Formats: sequence, structure tokens, C-alpha cells
Amino acid sequence: MPNQDRDDTKIETLARRVMARCDRLALCSEEPDHLTRTFLSPPMREVHADLREWMHSCHVTVRVDALGNLIGRYPAAEEPAPALLLGSHLDTVPNAGRYDGVVGVLLALAVVEAFDARFRSGESRLPFALEVIGFSEEEGVRFRTPYLGSRALSGQWEPSLLALRDKNGVRLDECLDAFGQDAAAIGAAVYSPSQVVGYVEAHIEQGPVLEKQALPVGIVSAVAGQTRCRLRFMGRAAHAGTTPMGLMRQDALVGAAEFIGAVEAAGQATPGLVATVGAITVLPNASNVIPGAAQISLDVRHARNTVREEAVAGLLEQAQRIAGRRGLHCQTLDRYDFAAVPMDADLRTLLAEAVEELGFPAHEMVSGAGHDAVMMAQLAPSAMLFLRGPNGGISHHPDETVFEEDVATALRVLVSLVEKVAASKEDENE
Amino acid sequence: MPNQDRDDTKIETLARRVMARCDRLALCSEEPDHLTRTFLSPPMREVHADLREWMHSCHVTVRVDALGNLIGRYPAAEEPAPALLLGSHLDTVPNAGRYDGVVGVLLALAVVEAFDARFRSGESRLPFALEVIGFSEEEGVRFRTPYLGSRALSGQWEPSLLALRDKNGVRLDECLDAFGQDAAAIGAAVYSPSQVVGYVEAHIEQGPVLEKQALPVGIVSAVAGQTRCRLRFMGRAAHAGTTPMGLMRQDALVGAAEFIGAVEAAGQATPGLVATVGAITVLPNASNVIPGAAQISLDVRHARNTVREEAVAGLLEQAQRIAGRRGLHCQTLDRYDFAAVPMDADLRTLLAEAVEELGFPAHEMVSGAGHDAVMMAQLAPSAMLFLRGPNGGISHHPDETVFEEDVATALRVLVSLVEKVAASKEDENE
Repeated sequence: MPNQDRDDTKIETLARRVMARCDRLALCSEEPDHLTRTFLSPPMREVHADLREWMHSCHVTVRVDALGNLIGRYPAAEEPAPALLLGSHLDTVPNAGRYDGVVGVLLALAVVEAFDARFRSGESRLPFALEVIGFSEEEGVRFRTPYLGSRALSGQWEPSLLALRDKNGVRLDECLDAFGQDAAAIGAAVYSPSQVVGYVEAHIEQGPVLEKQALPVGIVSAVAGQTRCRLRFMGRAAHAGTTPMGLMRQDALVGAAEFIGAVEAAGQATPGLVATVGAITVLPNASNVIPGAAQISLDVRHARNTVREEAVAGLLEQAQRIAGRRGLHCQTLDRYDFAAVPMDADLRTLLAEAVEELGFPAHEMVSGAGHDAVMMAQLAPSAMLFLRGPNGGISHHPDETVFEEDVATALRVLVSLVEKVAASKEDENE
Repeated sequence: MPNQDRDDTKIETLARRVMARCDRLALCSEEPDHLTRTFLSPPMREVHADLREWMHSCHVTVRVDALGNLIGRYPAAEEPAPALLLGSHLDTVPNAGRYDGVVGVLLALAVVEAFDARFRSGESRLPFALEVIGFSEEEGVRFRTPYLGSRALSGQWEPSLLALRDKNGVRLDECLDAFGQDAAAIGAAVYSPSQVVGYVEAHIEQGPVLEKQALPVGIVSAVAGQTRCRLRFMGRAAHAGTTPMGLMRQDALVGAAEFIGAVEAAGQATPGLVATVGAITVLPNASNVIPGAAQISLDVRHARNTVREEAVAGLLEQAQRIAGRRGLHCQTLDRYDFAAVPMDADLRTLLAEAVEELGFPAHEMVSGAGHDAVMMAQLAPSAMLFLRGPNGGISHHPDETVFEEDVATALRVLVSLVEKVAASKEDENE
């Protein structure tokens, strides 16, 4: 276990600093009494100013790219060299917690600080640069389109996105201009695969699994694929008092309710599948009227596309059967399918070794939520490390938190991963 | 079958006139393009003016009581005498049909017209007066309290009702004053039981039963009792992508959905019971969030109070079992219980005879909806005759309609009923 004993105190100091910096950046908000920080909003300037200061003090060169991503580069032993990218996003949802995204950026910076301390004490430098990336946008709040930052950096930007407008009518290109960025330079900001060793993102789990298993960290095997759609059950509104039960009723809500039960059963029947009806709207929604229409959302996710697609097909068939048996009509609306994104096998193996060397089981898990790694995986080998979420993994909420000791564990894993990647690069070159 | 052959042509003429008058009164509306006529709104004056004119031409004396009920009296053979009251309500729901309430008032007037023609041709008069009642309010729209008119006339008025305010802040007593009525005289407007032979109301079914059975009319055995409440299932909102199925989810909506299925099953298991969930509200109601709370309405009705009460108790237990099994909490909110109101056995028997003499089966049925007869039954023997509702009995909707031939049948039944009541009174006096 190289350097572990030597670094212990240092790692704990760095972890404490990550927590304090999360607190500090949570003050950079569009709202006085809670944390909301959308794409290139004024408080993002304060975040950048703080990060620049912290990065400068560990010899990191900072720039902001055309889409407002903040990028700090710590050079390789010999430049020019490709970079191992470490990071996450700096924007938040409305009324957010202080760790979603930000803790990954600050852990990336802490990794650089750990190596900077070593190099200043005489150790040889890495064969690749380390870059700390603070993506400008991931949550999709301001322009209702997620991953804006990683989309641009990974070469998946589409010019039509510049015409998106926020709720105040401000266009995305005007927003870039106001922040001092040059929309015309987005093309030049794209990384080429040859510039990148890989992308590694630490992120809070935003779910209850690691907490239930009493594990500080987990390794993401894949970001789940997702099918989203709406289903509309249509029956016939009628008087709740004067319409007998049975064939004289075409109650759209009892049809939808039966389907909601089927969605849960389908989710429970297939390992790894999650299937959820989160939203329902009933018409006329009056206590004394049999519902004439019920519209529900359906959200199905799995790490394997075929499993998800079969589950969705089965559920949509079941919806038709339920509707047919009840004299209802059922329509599927607005279906969107997003393929699963597997994480890089080599990076996962190295992460697993790093976790096990710390004495923890290497727990692989599917990410049910999307992350910048979805975009970055199109550019370079990518991996994600999840941090345990206390209190059931509550997230997108002011109560969102992480344990400082889990941040320390994640930092050890990331430092060890960088060492392992460096070792594997040196093996390649020998 | 006394007088039936002689009256046939006349009855058909009167039925056609009832239909034309329903069309005419549908023009008396608060809205230019659809029918809305709430308690003592300006168009109610036009309705009263038309009714006065029609009543005067058949020798009916008209007055408007303290609560705005229009009352037309056709005298008995010898006055003073008690009256057989025939009527229904003159107000409507918003965007209403033209028959709910009004057709019952106009049928009552047609009964008087039929007898007036006979008496003018020399037949002996009835031993009781006939009164045509057009109740000022039944739907509960303007002051969110139903039966205002029949509540006052039957002696169930409460002075606190005068302080109710409509959505514009107008108080009920101000509203009476503006219409020219005297709130202080409400007490004097109450009928005493000795003044009343009985109350008979013809009304559209507002349900599909008579249509399905191909019957023009039905006899109401009782107005169903009703339990109304709301149930709130509380779980835990969580990320739909990151929270595995099973024990880690406390999905309030799947709990509510299971209960909605149980409500339908309970309704189907007990003859005559109707059980409906008409409204549902889910929080946060977002497609990618497991619902943390789901609130539903419950409406249970039956002609027998014990049957309804047992069904409700069973359902509330089931809600607790479902919640317990799923790690949810379930609360019952705002429970209201209204007892069933049986119709008068003697009047039902006479109505059944009248229907059978016309060659139709005497179909007794429970009214799942409330009517002025609920209030009037506290004052005097009361009965209701339902008219078939075409198109599934659609009501509270501009498509609401009745067949002219069913109006004729109802009119024949009512005329025959009056004759039978008169005969039974004469038997009593002999």
C-alpha cells in the first residue's frame, strides 16, 4: 500500500478542508436563505473566484472554457502530455444540498493538493497532467437541458442549443456573452481523445444503497438506461352516486391504479430494474365524479438496455390489457429512451483494487441517475466513485450531507487510483 | 284506468309544452353562451316572471317566500285545506343541462294544468290544494351549502346560514334583501306538517340505470346515505432512479393505488353499494421522484346506513393494513356521514300502481344523489319519480336531456298519483 501511512494525517486534513469548502461554496447562491445556483448565474463567479484562489495555491493553472467550465491543470512530468480529468459539476438544483456535484470538484482539487505536496517534497511527477474540471452545468435547470458543460467539452455540443431561452427569455448565447465567454469558441474547447487519459468523477450516491450496506464508497458499473413516457387512460366521467359499480362504470383512475400496481410488480420481478409512477393527473378530479381520464408518468431504468426495453414493452402491453378489460382507452405519449452507459472496465478494476486495499469490499452498483460521466464516456474511458448518502441518501434537498470520513476514504481511493493509472501507463511505456 | 284515454292527447300536448318551457328557461342564465343560474342570481327573476305568467293562465296563485322559493297554489274543493306539494329546484350548476330540477317544476305545473282543464269542464275538485314549488336553491353552488330552499320551507333552516358569503363576499342575507325577500320572515315561511298532504318530486335520474333497463321512469325507494372523507397516505419521497424497489421504497402512490383497487372491490362485493375515489393529489408529483404523499377522496353510498357504515369501516381498516405492510402512514381526514332517507311507503305504493297501470314494471331504485326530497321528507310523506337519462344519464353537462315521451309518461304517472292520493283521502273521510 504505497504511501498510505505517510499520507494519513494529510488526507484527513484535506478531507476536512473539502467539507469546509463545500460549506463556503454553499454561500454562493442566487437566493439569500437557501442554495440555488444555476448555469452561469452571478454566484457562479464567486465560486470561480474561490476555486481560482485555492487552485493557485497548489500550482494549478486555471482557465474557463467557452461554455463556462472551470478547468485547472496540474502539469505532467513532461509537457505536452495528456491529462487525467477529475471533476464534477458546479451548478445546483433549486433549494439544493451543498454536496451534489461540488464535493466531486473539491475532491478532485484535494487529489491535486495531495500530489502537489508529494512533488514539492521531491517525489517524481506523474506521466500525465491532472486536470480538475468544474462543469458549468449538469442539472438541466436553467435551460431545461442537462449536461451543458460536459456536452461541450466532450464534443457533443449542438449549435441549436445556443438558441435555448431561460424562463426570463435570456438566450443561452446571450448568457455566455454576459459571463464573458465566447460562444464562437465552443468548437475549439472540445477535447480530443488523444489529450485525455480518462475521466473520473466522485459524486454522492443520492440513494440509500451504500448506507444500508454500511459502505463508505461504491464503484459505478454503468449509468442506467432510462425510458420515460406518459400514459393516458381514458374512460367516462359519471356521477359517483348514481352510477352502479361494474359494467356501467368506465373509471379511468381504477384502471391507472391497477397499472401502478403492475409497474411496481414489474420492478420487483427483475433484479436491478426500477420502475416508478411519480406523477398522476385525474380529470375532473372531483370527489363525487367517477374519473373520466387519468394520466400518469412512467420511469423505467436498468443497466442493460434489453432488460429495460423488454420490461417497458411488457408494461405497455399490460396497460392495454387492463384498459381493454375495463372498457378504457390507453395511449402512450412522449416516449423518450436513453441508452445505458457502461463505465470503463479498466478504471473500474483499478478503483476496485484501491477500495479493497483500504479494507472495504469493492461494491459495484448501477447509477440510476445521470451524471457528466454519461457525456464524458463518449470522449474517454470514464469511471465514477459514489460516496455514501446518510439519511437514506436524501439529495436535492438542504438536508443532503456526506460523512467527512467517507470524503477521506474517497480521497484515498482517488489518490490510489491516480497512482495505479500512472503505474499502468509506465508499464505500457516500458 | 280513469280518464287515461280521454287525457291522452292533452298529456302529449302538455309534455311537448314542458320540453319547450325547459328550452325557454335555459335561456335565463348568468352566462351568455351556456346555462349557469345560481341562487337568486338575476336570471332567476326572469324564471320567476315566466313561471308567474304560465301559472296565472291556469288559475294558480303565485307567491315567493322569504327564501326565494316560488310557490303556486291551486286551491282545493274547500279551503282552507292542506296541500299536496309537487316540485323541484330552479337553480343550476355551472355550465348545466336544462332539465335537472326545472323539468320537475314544469311537470308539477303540467299536473295542475291537466287538473285545471278537467275542473273547468265540470269535474269535481280535489280534497286538497296542489302546490307547485320551484325551490330557489338545491345545488349548493353559490354558498357551498345545498338545499337552501327546501331547508327553509321544511323548517330545517339555521340562522347561522344567513352569514354565509358567496365568492364575491356577498352575504346570504344581503342576497335575499337584494332579491326583495325578507330574511326576518324565514320562520313564518315554514310549513307545518298539518298543512301538507305530501311532497312528490319528479327529477331526471342522472344515472344510466333506467336507460340500460329500457324503462321511462323509476320510483325512488330511498335517497342513499353517504360517507365522504379524504385519506392521506404518507411515505418518503426519493429519487426514482437511485432507490431500489422493495423495502427501500415507501411509495405513497402505490399504497393509494392498492387502496383504490380495494375500494372498487368493496363496491362490487356488496349489492347496491357505490364506492368511488374521484380525486387524487400526489406530492411532489414529478415523474422522477417516488411519491412521498398521496391524498385521495373516498365517497361511499348505500340505501342502508349499516351496510354503508360497515363498508366504510372495512375500507378504513384495509387502508391501515395496506399502509402498515408498506411502511406508510395513513390518516383519515374530514369525514362526513349523511344518513339514508327512505321515501314514504304509501306514496311509493301508489306510484307503483300508477306506473304498472300504464303497462310498465314499477322499478324501484335508490337515488345515489341528494335531492330536495331529503329535506322535505322531514316535513311530510315524500316520494320521487325518476325520468330516464339518455346517453348514459349524462347530467350537470349541456348534453343532459330527456325524451319527450318519458316526460309524457311521468306526467301520466303524476296525474294518476294525485287521483290515487285523492281517492285515499276520500276513503279516509268516509
